[in-house]
Amino acid sequence: MTQKRPQLRNFATQPNQDDEEDLFEYFYDKPGALPGTIVIDKDAPLPKIILIDYNETNRTCLALQSPEDCAKYLDTASVSWVDVLGLGSEEILQQLGKVFDLHPLVLEDVVNVPQRPKVEDYEDHVVIIARMVMPKESGNSFYSEQVSLVLGKHYLLTVQEEPQRDCFTPVRDRIRHNKGTIRKRGADYLTYALLDAIIDGFFPVLEDYGERIEDLEEEVIANPTRKTLDKIYQIRRELLALRRAIWPQRDAINTLIRDGNILVSEEVRIYLRDCYDHAVQVMDMVETYRELSSGLMDVYMSSVGNRMNEVMKLLTVISSIFIPLTFVAGIYGMNFNTEKSPWNMPELNWYFGYPLCLALMIAIASGLIYFFWKRGWFENFSTIKDE
Amino acid sequence: MTQKRPQLRNFATQPNQDDEEDLFEYFYDKPGALPGTIVIDKDAPLPKIILIDYNETNRTCLALQSPEDCAKYLDTASVSWVDVLGLGSEEILQQLGKVFDLHPLVLEDVVNVPQRPKVEDYEDHVVIIARMVMPKESGNSFYSEQVSLVLGKHYLLTVQEEPQRDCFTPVRDRIRHNKGTIRKRGADYLTYALLDAIIDGFFPVLEDYGERIEDLEEEVIANPTRKTLDKIYQIRRELLALRRAIWPQRDAINTLIRDGNILVSEEVRIYLRDCYDHAVQVMDMVETYRELSSGLMDVYMSSVGNRMNEVMKLLTVISSIFIPLTFVAGIYGMNFNTEKSPWNMPELNWYFGYPLCLALMIAIASGLIYFFWKRGWFENFSTIKDE
Amino acid sequence: MTQKRPQLRNFATQPNQDDEEDLFEYFYDKPGALPGTIVIDKDAPLPKIILIDYNETNRTCLALQSPEDCAKYLDTASVSWVDVLGLGSEEILQQLGKVFDLHPLVLEDVVNVPQRPKVEDYEDHVVIIARMVMPKESGNSFYSEQVSLVLGKHYLLTVQEEPQRDCFTPVRDRIRHNKGTIRKRGADYLTYALLDAIIDGFFPVLEDYGERIEDLEEEVIANPTRKTLDKIYQIRRELLALRRAIWPQRDAINTLIRDGNILVSEEVRIYLRDCYDHAVQVMDMVETYRELSSGLMDVYMSSVGNRMNEVMKLLTVISSIFIPLTFVAGIYGMNFNTEKSPWNMPELNWYFGYPLCLALMIAIASGLIYFFWKRGWFENFSTIKDE
Amino acid sequence: MTQKRPQLRNFATQPNQDDEEDLFEYFYDKPGALPGTIVIDKDAPLPKIILIDYNETNRTCLALQSPEDCAKYLDTASVSWVDVLGLGSEEILQQLGKVFDLHPLVLEDVVNVPQRPKVEDYEDHVVIIARMVMPKESGNSFYSEQVSLVLGKHYLLTVQEEPQRDCFTPVRDRIRHNKGTIRKRGADYLTYALLDAIIDGFFPVLEDYGERIEDLEEEVIANPTRKTLDKIYQIRRELLALRRAIWPQRDAINTLIRDGNILVSEEVRIYLRDCYDHAVQVMDMVETYRELSSGLMDVYMSSVGNRMNEVMKLLTVISSIFIPLTFVAGIYGMNFNTEKSPWNMPELNWYFGYPLCLALMIAIASGLIYFFWKRGWFENFSTIKDE
Amino acid sequence: MTQKRPQLRNFATQPNQDDEEDLFEYFYDKPGALPGTIVIDKDAPLPKIILIDYNETNRTCLALQSPEDCAKYLDTASVSWVDVLGLGSEEILQQLGKVFDLHPLVLEDVVNVPQRPKVEDYEDHVVIIARMVMPKESGNSFYSEQVSLVLGKHYLLTVQEEPQRDCFTPVRDRIRHNKGTIRKRGADYLTYALLDAIIDGFFPVLEDYGERIEDLEEEVIANPTRKTLDKIYQIRRELLALRRAIWPQRDAINTLIRDGNILVSEEVRIYLRDCYDHAVQVMDMVETYRELSSGLMDVYMSSVGNRMNEVMKLLTVISSIFIPLTFVAGIYGMNFNTEKSPWNMPELNWYFGYPLCLALMIAIASGLIYFFWKRGWFENFSTIKDE
Repeated sequence: MTQKRPQLRNFATQPNQDDEEDLFEYFYDKPGALPGTIVIDKDAPLPKIILIDYNETNRTCLALQSPEDCAKYLDTASVSWVDVLGLGSEEILQQLGKVFDLHPLVLEDVVNVPQRPKVEDYEDHVVIIARMVMPKESGNSFYSEQVSLVLGKHYLLTVQEEPQRDCFTPVRDRIRHNKGTIRKRGADYLTYALLDAIIDGFFPVLEDYGERIEDLEEEVIANPTRKTLDKIYQIRRELLALRRAIWPQRDAINTLIRDGNILVSEEVRIYLRDCYDHAVQVMDMVETYRELSSGLMDVYMSSVGNRMNEVMKLLTVISSIFIPLTFVAGIYGMNFNTEKSPWNMPELNWYFGYPLCLALMIAIASGLIYFFWKRGWFENFSTIKDE
Repeated sequence: MTQKRPQLRNFATQPNQDDEEDLFEYFYDKPGALPGTIVIDKDAPLPKIILIDYNETNRTCLALQSPEDCAKYLDTASVSWVDVLGLGSEEILQQLGKVFDLHPLVLEDVVNVPQRPKVEDYEDHVVIIARMVMPKESGNSFYSEQVSLVLGKHYLLTVQEEPQRDCFTPVRDRIRHNKGTIRKRGADYLTYALLDAIIDGFFPVLEDYGERIEDLEEEVIANPTRKTLDKIYQIRRELLALRRAIWPQRDAINTLIRDGNILVSEEVRIYLRDCYDHAVQVMDMVETYRELSSGLMDVYMSSVGNRMNEVMKLLTVISSIFIPLTFVAGIYGMNFNTEKSPWNMPELNWYFGYPLCLALMIAIASGLIYFFWKRGWFENFSTIKDE
Repeated sequence: MTQKRPQLRNFATQPNQDDEEDLFEYFYDKPGALPGTIVIDKDAPLPKIILIDYNETNRTCLALQSPEDCAKYLDTASVSWVDVLGLGSEEILQQLGKVFDLHPLVLEDVVNVPQRPKVEDYEDHVVIIARMVMPKESGNSFYSEQVSLVLGKHYLLTVQEEPQRDCFTPVRDRIRHNKGTIRKRGADYLTYALLDAIIDGFFPVLEDYGERIEDLEEEVIANPTRKTLDKIYQIRRELLALRRAIWPQRDAINTLIRDGNILVSEEVRIYLRDCYDHAVQVMDMVETYRELSSGLMDVYMSSVGNRMNEVMKLLTVISSIFIPLTFVAGIYGMNFNTEKSPWNMPELNWYFGYPLCLALMIAIASGLIYFFWKRGWFENFSTIKDE
Repeated sequence: MTQKRPQLRNFATQPNQDDEEDLFEYFYDKPGALPGTIVIDKDAPLPKIILIDYNETNRTCLALQSPEDCAKYLDTASVSWVDVLGLGSEEILQQLGKVFDLHPLVLEDVVNVPQRPKVEDYEDHVVIIARMVMPKESGNSFYSEQVSLVLGKHYLLTVQEEPQRDCFTPVRDRIRHNKGTIRKRGADYLTYALLDAIIDGFFPVLEDYGERIEDLEEEVIANPTRKTLDKIYQIRRELLALRRAIWPQRDAINTLIRDGNILVSEEVRIYLRDCYDHAVQVMDMVETYRELSSGLMDVYMSSVGNRMNEVMKLLTVISSIFIPLTFVAGIYGMNFNTEKSPWNMPELNWYFGYPLCLALMIAIASGLIYFFWKRGWFENFSTIKDE
Repeated sequence: MTQKRPQLRNFATQPNQDDEEDLFEYFYDKPGALPGTIVIDKDAPLPKIILIDYNETNRTCLALQSPEDCAKYLDTASVSWVDVLGLGSEEILQQLGKVFDLHPLVLEDVVNVPQRPKVEDYEDHVVIIARMVMPKESGNSFYSEQVSLVLGKHYLLTVQEEPQRDCFTPVRDRIRHNKGTIRKRGADYLTYALLDAIIDGFFPVLEDYGERIEDLEEEVIANPTRKTLDKIYQIRRELLALRRAIWPQRDAINTLIRDGNILVSEEVRIYLRDCYDHAVQVMDMVETYRELSSGLMDVYMSSVGNRMNEVMKLLTVISSIFIPLTFVAGIYGMNFNTEKSPWNMPELNWYFGYPLCLALMIAIASGLIYFFWKRGWFENFSTIKDE
């Protein structure tokens, strides 16, 4: 298998930067490669397969060893949710393709992540490629993971990149505790419930950005530093990634509502419309935050100009006052004749004249240094140093 | 009920900022939550229910205890306007849902504010989510509140977030005093009258922005300060919020006109077209003000550059004049031989030579300090201090 | 009548600014006000009513006292052009509404100016709201006035805001002197002739902007001042207003051509297409000038930076040359022993050494002050003063 | 004839600037003027009329005195190309209108240049208003001229503004030497051949811009001056004009292909599609160059900032080094007691101490002046002077 | 043949720049030139013709001398892939046109490179003009080459500009080793396989840009230099070229899918949809990188401002501290009477006073010079020098 995977860079020395890069790249085949080839990342976790089979009265939850084990559940009238977590075994994934009768190109899209969200309509199943985001605990950036959903008549297959985290737990709880109507409905309603959880998962992430932008708004006007600039750029960068995730997802949900696929019932379409509304709200917020952060950049530039103005003024004030004075002092060389008058520079004849004069100078210098140190100007020079 | 509500931040220590934040966020469900769940903000005011039932000859106005009390009015031929003010009781709101036969998703949209304005067409009623803005007394920013309208055959249900203020008083007066044709017409005309009041409510808010921008135009060219920058950014921010409120509202009114729902009569559609024209005018003004404020930012940046130019010139003039002079004074050390000629530095032998010289210096320094103080330059340094 | 009118601000102390504001606001009803209410500005001029009734052979031109007087002319086969100038009497305007059978919402649009240009199609008449612009004598800015046209089978009603000026005089001349084919054609051709005059009226205004931008192009590169910035901003502002006037007007003319209203003959549609072409040309020029003025702002910013560069260089040159020299002079204190050699500072022993030295200093200072004064640098400090 | 023509400004004192202005204005009628009026520029050259009549076997080429002379050729089966060069005689142009049976509005568009490119379809002829550009010999800017084409069944009328130059010579050669298939085909193929020549004429002009932008790219990073700024602005300005010329032309060609006019044969439509592709390529290049030149403006601004940084650094280095030294020199007044030690300032007692010291100063000053002069800093001050 | 070819500039003295220019120009005919003329670049390599003829069981691979040699393969049921590498012989290319029965305009598009990517549908063949990009070994910029594909019933003709490199090798391997299903399918599948290789070829190029942008992100905040600016501009420039290559290519693939040409089977359309998805992903990445690089330019500008701020602060600190001290030293002229007190300037009477003082000065100056040299400030002055 010679295909190059951008994800393999995870082993590079700077893992943080690679995380960020993931935000913008797509998986790509080596030019001219065989279509339908699936590429396994050696570090990807081994797939865990969880089957939840339920109807109004019963619920079974099994951890399966192999995809073939779930074949017998798929055609029963009860809804079978096969949840595959991890993309680390070509063998299991190929079996999965056989059991669910997936077109090679579909299996490629499911396994070779990341792909662009989309909906594809096959005769007896619908394939939905979606992207799930979750806030990082630190409140900065977010986790992003591809979820592929394959909706059949009585089953739903979901394939996630990693087993650690997803936003489906509340849906599992609703099935387990028979909350709401989910147990009374079909696989299409389950699909809706998961898509809705995915879309709603964007909101907490966006709320973090709302708070970060709010913090920056104060910072940028009051005290713009080099770090502020970095933060604004990071936010713009990450919002760009969010935008790339939500735009095609909205279109995908719309396709799902419009295309008259019989696997999605009329009633569930009403729910999907609600989900579509939420996707539009997410886009709306992303665009708003993008506009705000772009406005922040303008404010930052102006603030830097303002600050320079103030520094210039300080320099001008001090120079303007002392340069003429020094000139006057220079003219007379201050050689006033001390003999002509006791008023003329008596300091020169004082016993401690020179030490006092030095002390005055040290006092002035210390005062000014304290003034600048207090305002943090010396930190800046250390930054100059680092270049 | 574990769902997170952004509104709960109202208890935070900085209430002003949270008000602003409300401009951009939407209500969101916890990812994976049961669809149709309604979430009550503990601080929301308890709902007051006002029923106005009228026809051409009679008018009844009642404060109801419970939504069930209005059931008997709904099917009569007279128009029943049920106005619910406040979202603070789940029980009452659930009853409301039952009395008016609302889909759980609709009730969720009505209660879980803020939502994006929209129109949804059900078989026997039309649901309109709208957003009402009112100018703040201070002339800065604006109040913003969601109003949900449910139009049935003989009734109109409106749900507002708060009882303190709305822009429906003149419509109530027209009903009370039988002004115009409102008492002769149906619930659809009442819907139009309220929507028109909501749209017209944007104009006074926008007029405030027109005045603020006009004030800024002078300020930004004559005397741009850090506060000016803040003001421009605030205006851009708030106009962004207004834009988010009016765009979907315009689309919603358009949908109401186009979709052939039988609840809206042909005659009222003509009035709604007028209302649509007003919404377009609002959008037009919002976009114009956005362009103006974005132009102001450019002018601000250039002005800051201009100002720096002037400061630089002052520094250059003073330095260029005195530095060469000081050099000349330095060359001669001003040790002209006073014995060779009475013209050579007679000041050195004056009785008050030194004090006079000091006095001259103090005079120069005071003059310059006064010059800078008059122009407010020292204020700037205090701002540097605060950082 | 409690409705607020932005126009009433004409009484404010700063009439110029209010003129500018008019560029961007629309008339708005008090939220919730009765639809169809007309609002009279107390300072609006009383309406003058001019009737021109003509056919191929005859022409009558009358100043009428009351709208009712023109009723008898309307149904005759000859074309009756009723031109109402001024909006200062509610009574007369209401009569007008009755005589021409106008929907209350139409009368409101005609009277409550400014409105957005549009076309509305009623059964027996077409209402066109248009905006006419005329260049100011000063060559800066422009007059802007709403003209409402109501086209019936044999008549055309036009309502203008003010009687002082319009751009219809050449059309009146063509009718009076029977120039061209206007007397042989119907009211629809007259409508075209007036619309064409309105659209062609934009060109001289735009030509003024072309010249102002051309002037600014030179100014901005050679000598950018604070006033230049103000001028660029004003031009952008006014072009924004022109754009707001021409966009909906173009759409309105297009509606007139496309909608198959029988009041507009096929032949006149060909002429209207020509008029539409002109409207597109106006838009084209407005957009071009907007791009040019936005480019000018970029050039301005760069020019300010360039200028600062030059000032900085001057400062650097002078400082770099004299500061080291002063240091050298400082080292030796210039205490060269004049007794060791006649070459050592003989100036110190000259009879006029000190006065000559002072004279040298005064000469240097005067030269530099003249240099800066010649370049207008001191004007700038007076501007600093004004802040 | 009192109509104002922007072209008449050619007599103004600054002919270059007026040339540029022509890029953005359209011809306009005096508001309210009679439609169909043609306006003759007194300086326009008298029309020359060239008739080329050809079929597969014969070719006639005549210079006609009057349009009427060509009437007899128009209806013959051979293709008659009537080429009118110059717009300086109303009489001839009116005759032309009669001979070719042109609608007065068409004749107006043909004569009253410049107009926006367009296609208009009349029953027995198609009118195409096109714009031809040719590179100036200097490599800066371009000539621009309107060409109107009227395609009839067996004839093609072309009207150009000036006889000096056009880009049709190769087409004439192909007719003369019977190259290619042009002599075997109809007037529609001739129309295509000319339109193709017009569109291909944009490429050499654009290539000049490509070269000018390439030159600027180096200049703007290495050595940005005030002239660079001017050049960037000029390029943006001229590209805007090119864009205005090519956009409507592309639409016009598209209309020609789509509208099923029988005068254009199916076969020629294939050729026109090729011509349309070229128009798209021109637009593509114009947009690309516009983006590049707009990017250049950003680079310019940053470069100016960079340069200022360097100037500031030079000032800072020199000031930072010499100011503390001068202070140290100042403290000791350099009054070291030469009597205590021969090491203490022996220079003061040298015979040529003072002249040597002066010589040192002159050397330092000359060195620095040479340094700055070499870098061209003094040129800048002369520019400051010119303001 | 007198037509001008931009490619001929390869002989210019600055070959690198010409390479870049190729990114934005199209081939153009001399205005008025005969349509269908093909232009041979004298330096173009002579065409090599490779025929690969295959079906499920057999495979033939031949290097042909002349296009006529492949005529006999074209109509057989096996798939014939005729691959022409190089455009350097008019004779061979004209023969090619005859053998494959190409319309003269098509042959022109194939030979006169570069052209805009497009699809054209002829009765018995489909012509696809595509653009192939390949990363340069240096990791900067990319090679770009036009590939024309002509798909017939049993054959595929591909024409490349150069024989050195292409991205079709893996496809050739798949045919040679009978990997996948390619040998079982028709010429349309081969077309898909090549188009897919072309589109996938964009990804490695884009990945290079991702890395370059990532590098720049650090550089631009930490240490922005003149070279950084150049790099950002280069990236924007090259991304513009990539965008121009991929946009029309996506449209072309879409046309191929939508237009019901019988040469493309339903099954291959599914594969083309996958290819279309990849093209959308490429566009998505290009747009993202463009937004990032445009954001980088903003950050650069702000960083330059920041840096200047720091330089200014250093100057201000040093000036503010030493200028007042120098003034104080100046006042007293440091003529303290050493006779009055041993504390008064005893240094003046030291034996090594003056040398020590000079040593102190040299130490200060060296320290500062080291400080600035360490931070690379002197490099900047050498750059000033080069201008």
